[in-house]
Amino acid sequence: MKTEIPTIPTPDDAVLWHDERLYLADQRLLPERAEFLPLDQAPAVADAIRAMVVRGAPAIGVAAAYGVVLAARAAHAAAGAGWKAAIEPDLERLADSRPTAVNLFWAIRRMRTRIEELDRSDPTSALLSEARSIHDEDRAANRRIGELGAELIEGPTDIMTHCNAGALATGGYGTALGVVRSAFAAGKVRRVFADETRPWMQGSRLTAWELMQDGIPVTLQADGAAASLMATGTVGWVIVGSDRIAGNGDVANKIGTYGLAVLAKFHGIKFMVAAPTSTLDMQIASGAEIPIEERDPDELLGCGGRRLAPTDCVARNPVFDVTPAALVDAIVTERGVVRNPTPEKMRGLLAATGEMNGL
Amino acid sequence: MKTEIPTIPTPDDAVLWHDERLYLADQRLLPERAEFLPLDQAPAVADAIRAMVVRGAPAIGVAAAYGVVLAARAAHAAAGAGWKAAIEPDLERLADSRPTAVNLFWAIRRMRTRIEELDRSDPTSALLSEARSIHDEDRAANRRIGELGAELIEGPTDIMTHCNAGALATGGYGTALGVVRSAFAAGKVRRVFADETRPWMQGSRLTAWELMQDGIPVTLQADGAAASLMATGTVGWVIVGSDRIAGNGDVANKIGTYGLAVLAKFHGIKFMVAAPTSTLDMQIASGAEIPIEERDPDELLGCGGRRLAPTDCVARNPVFDVTPAALVDAIVTERGVVRNPTPEKMRGLLAATGEMNGL
Repeated sequence: MKTEIPTIPTPDDAVLWHDERLYLADQRLLPERAEFLPLDQAPAVADAIRAMVVRGAPAIGVAAAYGVVLAARAAHAAAGAGWKAAIEPDLERLADSRPTAVNLFWAIRRMRTRIEELDRSDPTSALLSEARSIHDEDRAANRRIGELGAELIEGPTDIMTHCNAGALATGGYGTALGVVRSAFAAGKVRRVFADETRPWMQGSRLTAWELMQDGIPVTLQADGAAASLMATGTVGWVIVGSDRIAGNGDVANKIGTYGLAVLAKFHGIKFMVAAPTSTLDMQIASGAEIPIEERDPDELLGCGGRRLAPTDCVARNPVFDVTPAALVDAIVTERGVVRNPTPEKMRGLLAATGEMNGL
Repeated sequence: MKTEIPTIPTPDDAVLWHDERLYLADQRLLPERAEFLPLDQAPAVADAIRAMVVRGAPAIGVAAAYGVVLAARAAHAAAGAGWKAAIEPDLERLADSRPTAVNLFWAIRRMRTRIEELDRSDPTSALLSEARSIHDEDRAANRRIGELGAELIEGPTDIMTHCNAGALATGGYGTALGVVRSAFAAGKVRRVFADETRPWMQGSRLTAWELMQDGIPVTLQADGAAASLMATGTVGWVIVGSDRIAGNGDVANKIGTYGLAVLAKFHGIKFMVAAPTSTLDMQIASGAEIPIEERDPDELLGCGGRRLAPTDCVARNPVFDVTPAALVDAIVTERGVVRNPTPEKMRGLLAATGEMNGL
C-alpha cells in the first residue's frame, strides 16, 4: 500500500486525487507550511470542509465530489449491491458541512445524478471519473473566466481583491485571481492590492502566497485601508469571487465584499465578480434567500492563535455578506459575461447554453 | 524614594502623574494585563508614544504635556538657569514621536507658551500645574462632548464605533465613547458594535474592555462586517474620534474611518465625530494637508505576535485616513456642535469663544 504523502508543487494542486485517496492542501497552515492532509473517508472530508482545511466555493465543490467517491467506495465495501442506500448518511454529512457556498450542493447533486444512472455494482470508478470531470471542468471554466474577465480590463491599472478566489479556492487557476493572472499576462495589471481579510486572513496567507509564487506584484493591506486606497485613484477594478449568486445577480461572498462594492461605486471603480456557473443558484430570486454562515466568535476574538479580546466578550462573526446586483458591474462566468445583472440577463446567460442549477 | 507602581483602577486613569513620575497604562498589553509603565525622562515618553504604549490623540497630548514637565526638570537639573535652551532637544523629540495627531503639537505649543512666561528658576512646579490643567480640561471637555453628542441621538438605537476613542484614548471619559457613555445613561443606546480595528486591534483590546467595565452592551465585529451590519437597519449612528480636523471639517482618524463614513452615507446612517477643540488644526485648509502616518508593515503582516503573511510580502500600513467633511453629519466639541461642517462653520465655532490652534 502506498502511503507517501505527495508534496504541493503549486497552488493549482491544492485538491488532488492520488493513490485512491483525496489529498487536500491544508489551507489553515499556509504559507507557513505547505502540507497535504490525506483523506480516505467521506466523513473526514466533511470535517475538513467545515474546518476550512479546504475553502473557496469551487474547491469545496470539487472536494465534496471526491468525497462522494470515498463515500461510494465505503458504501459498496460495507453493503455491496445495497450501496445506494448505504451511501446516504455520508452524502448528507457532506452537504451539512457548510451552508453558503452553493457549489457544494451543486457538486453533490451532480454526483447524485450520476449515482442514479449506475447499477448495483462497484460505483467507485464511474464516480471517480465524474469527480475528475467536475474538477477538470472547473479548471477549464476558470481559464475561460480569466480570458473573458481580462478582456473587460483596460490596463494598465491596479486591481483590488478580497479574500482568496485563486487556484487554492478552486479546481485550479482561480476565479478572481484567474482574471488577474490573465490580465497580468496581457500587461493590464500593475499591482494587486489584497485585503488581508479578517478573521481568517485568506488575503495574507493565501492570496499573497499565490500571487508571489506567480511573480505578480501584490501589496497587502488591512481591510479598513481599502477606502483610502480607492481614494488615490489608481485602482481600476475590484475583482472578487463568489460563494453563491442568486437569480437576480445578487452576490454572496466573503464578509467585507459588500462594503467594497459600495466603496467602489462611490469612487467610480468597476466591480467584477468572477465565478463559474456552478456558483449560480437560479432557484432563489434574490440574495435575501442565501443562508449566511455565522462561525464561532472565537475566530474573531483572537488572531494568530492568541486571544486578544476580553474574556466573555460578545462577537458577531458572519463570514459572508450579500452584494446587491445593482452594485455589480460584471459577473464573469465561463459561459459569458453579464453586465449590470438583472434576472432576465441571468436567465439569458444560461438559456443560451442549456439548463444549470435548476434552470 | 517611593517607587511603588500604582495599579490601574479604571480606564479613566490610563495617564497618571504620581510620585513625580508619569505612569502610562501600557495599552499594548491590555486587556490581558493592566500594567503601568513608569516614566521619568522625556525621551522615554517620546518612545512610549511612538511605540503606542499610549495612543489616542488627546491622550498623546496629555502624555506629551507631562513629558515636557520631565524634560524641564531634567533640563534644570543639568543646566540650572540655562534650562530653556537645554530643554529644546527633548521638546523636539516629543514632537517627532508621531505625525498625525495634532493634539501632540497643540499640547507642546501650549507648554511652550507657559515656558516663555517663566523665569530662569526651577520650572517644574509651574509646568506640572500647566500639564495638570491640560489633563483636567481634556477630561472636562469630554464630559461636555458626551452631553452634547448624546443630545443628537434619538434613541434607543445601536451605535457603531471604530478603534478606541474612549477613556484610554483621552485624559478620561472618552470622546466617541464619552458620547456613548452619556447616551447610554440616557437610555438611548441599545448596543455598541465595535470594529476590531486592524492592525492594532484597539476595538478588540481596548473598546471592548472599556465598555464591558461600564456594563454597556458591546459586540465585536471584523472591520469588514460593518457594511452587512449597517444593511440590517439597526444602527442609528456611527460615532468616532479624531486625530486631526482640518479648517474645512475634514477629519483624520484611524484607518477604516473614511470607509465607514461612505458606508454610513450609503445606508442613511448618521456619522458623528467627537473631539475636543485641541484636535482642530485651523492652520490647514483641508484634510489633504494632514500627514498620514505609515507604520511598519510588520504590524500588518502578522497578528497576535505571529507572522501570517509570506516572507518578503509587501504591505501598505497607513494608520489613518481622511474623511471629507461632506460625509460628516456632526462634529461635536466641548465648545459646541458643528453640523454639516464647512470652513465658515468651523471658524464660527472658535470665533465665539476666542482663538484656538492658530485662529
